[in-house]
Amino acid sequence: MTALDGVLKRVDGNLDQAIRRLFDLVRIPSISTDPAHAADCVRAADWLVADLKGMGFEARAAATAGHPMVVAHHCRAPGKPHVLFYGHYDVQPVDPLHLWKRPPFEPAVIEAGTGRQLTGRGTSDDKGQLMTFVEAARMWIAETGSLPLNVTILFEGEEESGSPSLVPFLRKHRKELKAEYALVCDTGMWDRNSPCITTALRGLVGEEVTIRAANRDLHSGMYGSAARNPIHVLADILASLHDAKGRLTLPGFYKGEPETPKAVLAQWKKLKGQERKFLTDIGLSVAAGEKGRSLLEMTWARPTAEVNGISGGYTGDGFKTVIASEAKAKVSFRLVGTQDPDAVRASFRAHVKKRLPRDCKATFAPHGGSPAIRLDPKMPALAKAAGALKDEWGKAATLTAMGGSIPVVGYFQSVLAMQSLLVGFGLDDDRIHSPNEKYELASFHRGTRSWARILQALAKS
Amino acid sequence: MTALDGVLKRVDGNLDQAIRRLFDLVRIPSISTDPAHAADCVRAADWLVADLKGMGFEARAAATAGHPMVVAHHCRAPGKPHVLFYGHYDVQPVDPLHLWKRPPFEPAVIEAGTGRQLTGRGTSDDKGQLMTFVEAARMWIAETGSLPLNVTILFEGEEESGSPSLVPFLRKHRKELKAEYALVCDTGMWDRNSPCITTALRGLVGEEVTIRAANRDLHSGMYGSAARNPIHVLADILASLHDAKGRLTLPGFYKGEPETPKAVLAQWKKLKGQERKFLTDIGLSVAAGEKGRSLLEMTWARPTAEVNGISGGYTGDGFKTVIASEAKAKVSFRLVGTQDPDAVRASFRAHVKKRLPRDCKATFAPHGGSPAIRLDPKMPALAKAAGALKDEWGKAATLTAMGGSIPVVGYFQSVLAMQSLLVGFGLDDDRIHSPNEKYELASFHRGTRSWARILQALAKS
Repeated sequence: MTALDGVLKRVDGNLDQAIRRLFDLVRIPSISTDPAHAADCVRAADWLVADLKGMGFEARAAATAGHPMVVAHHCRAPGKPHVLFYGHYDVQPVDPLHLWKRPPFEPAVIEAGTGRQLTGRGTSDDKGQLMTFVEAARMWIAETGSLPLNVTILFEGEEESGSPSLVPFLRKHRKELKAEYALVCDTGMWDRNSPCITTALRGLVGEEVTIRAANRDLHSGMYGSAARNPIHVLADILASLHDAKGRLTLPGFYKGEPETPKAVLAQWKKLKGQERKFLTDIGLSVAAGEKGRSLLEMTWARPTAEVNGISGGYTGDGFKTVIASEAKAKVSFRLVGTQDPDAVRASFRAHVKKRLPRDCKATFAPHGGSPAIRLDPKMPALAKAAGALKDEWGKAATLTAMGGSIPVVGYFQSVLAMQSLLVGFGLDDDRIHSPNEKYELASFHRGTRSWARILQALAKS
Repeated sequence: MTALDGVLKRVDGNLDQAIRRLFDLVRIPSISTDPAHAADCVRAADWLVADLKGMGFEARAAATAGHPMVVAHHCRAPGKPHVLFYGHYDVQPVDPLHLWKRPPFEPAVIEAGTGRQLTGRGTSDDKGQLMTFVEAARMWIAETGSLPLNVTILFEGEEESGSPSLVPFLRKHRKELKAEYALVCDTGMWDRNSPCITTALRGLVGEEVTIRAANRDLHSGMYGSAARNPIHVLADILASLHDAKGRLTLPGFYKGEPETPKAVLAQWKKLKGQERKFLTDIGLSVAAGEKGRSLLEMTWARPTAEVNGISGGYTGDGFKTVIASEAKAKVSFRLVGTQDPDAVRASFRAHVKKRLPRDCKATFAPHGGSPAIRLDPKMPALAKAAGALKDEWGKAATLTAMGGSIPVVGYFQSVLAMQSLLVGFGLDDDRIHSPNEKYELASFHRGTRSWARILQALAKS
């Protein structure tokens, strides 16, 4: 029996304890965007530090201007590669709470048609994912007394709220965090049986705009039509973001946006069977977005704008004939190629100001910005990880793009001059960022087994 | 000293007690649109019944399917006219609560630059206004043992929530409520020194629309642009309600909408000095609405549409990259002439459905509908009331139109075949429906004196 065989056997035999540990972490409501949960973010960081220390890591919760970073080292494999593993312990808000079938922070194992699932906010994004790595490391140490290579861990607590402290922290601790490359576990599988390595990520610009008109709420009977209604102004602005073909109208928006090579599009076309399922799974049948583009292209390779939230006036039960003094929207842009986040933000602000009646005011609050990422497909570690994944899943890993943004990958490139290997075990229907988030038990179990294998594969020269 | 002189003296001498009574009523948070305040509506009705009984009225709180109606009679003046006085004891919601300088249901007398003010939700709309009549009646009874004419009172508890029980109640109690004409105290003064009788009111259609797309909230990185965003759909629909000239685009909307006679427009033009003040008072400088119309015409005589509330997606602190499964708006239309509320509602719904992507759903909830009202300017009671107002204020009452809607006036016409005389003492800056509602102490005091005079004037044949 090889060392790896022993590690895998331990992963299987310790699954129940691993679930219990994950659930302890999920029970901590570490919602980073909500100031009311700041202490919970500290608790989650401390929980991870204690767990990693227990495994033999040198670990600490490092203070930032926001929520703490967990930094840990296990570097006792001289001559072996040194990798940085990244995950995030913070989670998304849980509203609308009434749509949850179980309380979001009381995780449970439930039986679903497709197998057992772990339910609760963060079971998939990203607590469940990061614990696949931690459990794999734990079993390596339990089996062999150490890890097959040198590992530094960085767990962030602000990934879901724009990562304001990340770049300053990477800069300040550049030396401590620098490794040969990074491992990031915050992405998904191709489907429930097919592993996947993500090699391209879209960038993100988040922006909140507030339109103010009158100095107070007004009675719409007395002032209607004569006084400017900021909800009308906002609706006009948002409606003007796209043209009839679904393209963004912001001047300069498509600058630096490359067309996807025809060969790649042809490859994606073969996956077309997915498209109908993609829509029917979410209760839709007609693709929105740009005319003449496939769904995969739209979500993997095209820049977009989405209004993520809107509010203004009276929104309670019943009716109130009011003209609000202000209206707000949260808007996000996904970027590809070399589109510049700062230029996109500036273009949006100019677009709003251009459409603003003279006596209205617009104020803006930025919520994060990061460029798109394309990883080097010839990275040697990628081939090694792909081999390990094939050993576990019995089929080759699909190399995919991803519509979401993982800004840290860009910062690892720009601040630490370090490539990232993106391996994750989430599924499209995990309902991350939505009510009833879950992680497949198979994702958790075989994800842990996959990392156990990848650690060994990466250790080989 | 005439009887009226004695009554007026009592009004002056009893002002402090009258304020105390009004404040007792204001302290009851009778927000009719919020089911959580149903018991408070009952309390407010009971308070009025007790007060009227104490004055010698036969009074009761009559049950409806919604909040109770207060009905009271004081008919001991044989051979004299019989009038129905109408007011409403329910109030608007108070959010956003943080903008109130004092708690909305803890009324107070404060010193303002323009004189003393009574502050709190309902001090103006309509508790303060209806109590001007009640106090005038109380002083007449105190001074003379009776009223100079026969009075029936109807106080509604659903005026701010679409009056769902009103028409059935008027129909059922037609005989009991029928009088020669109605007196309605729910309108304003021309300015703080000039009394006013309102002879035209716009109609109102309230409608709530919900747009549903996917069967759950989605991650905008994974689904953005490919999955339909209901906030985009809603923004497009709302933006398409008006054309570039500020006119409504609903087919058939302007049917039954008369142009205001040129002579009337010319009269309003003389009031133009008001326009700049109208806007600067609310912190604006540019008129919105239809091009080529004056502000007075727009708010008194033109039909309009206003979005009174909008919500969708994540609206809390911070940011969430979500595509909502639904978005909502509350929209109201003001009607003039013979515009048909049902036809306007149907046209709006058709407009929404026409713009709806095939796999989205729209649902609608009606919130009241009433046609516009134009009163007979030759009504004899109008001249009598105008004379009484001139005696009190030293200047002739302005006859005005009003942008708001008082549906009961239409129902008095259609169900009880009864004209209404609209006299009120509110000011444009009373912030009704807004935080920091107030009523001028002068409005309350001289309003009470005005009703004392009007009661006598109407009693004369």
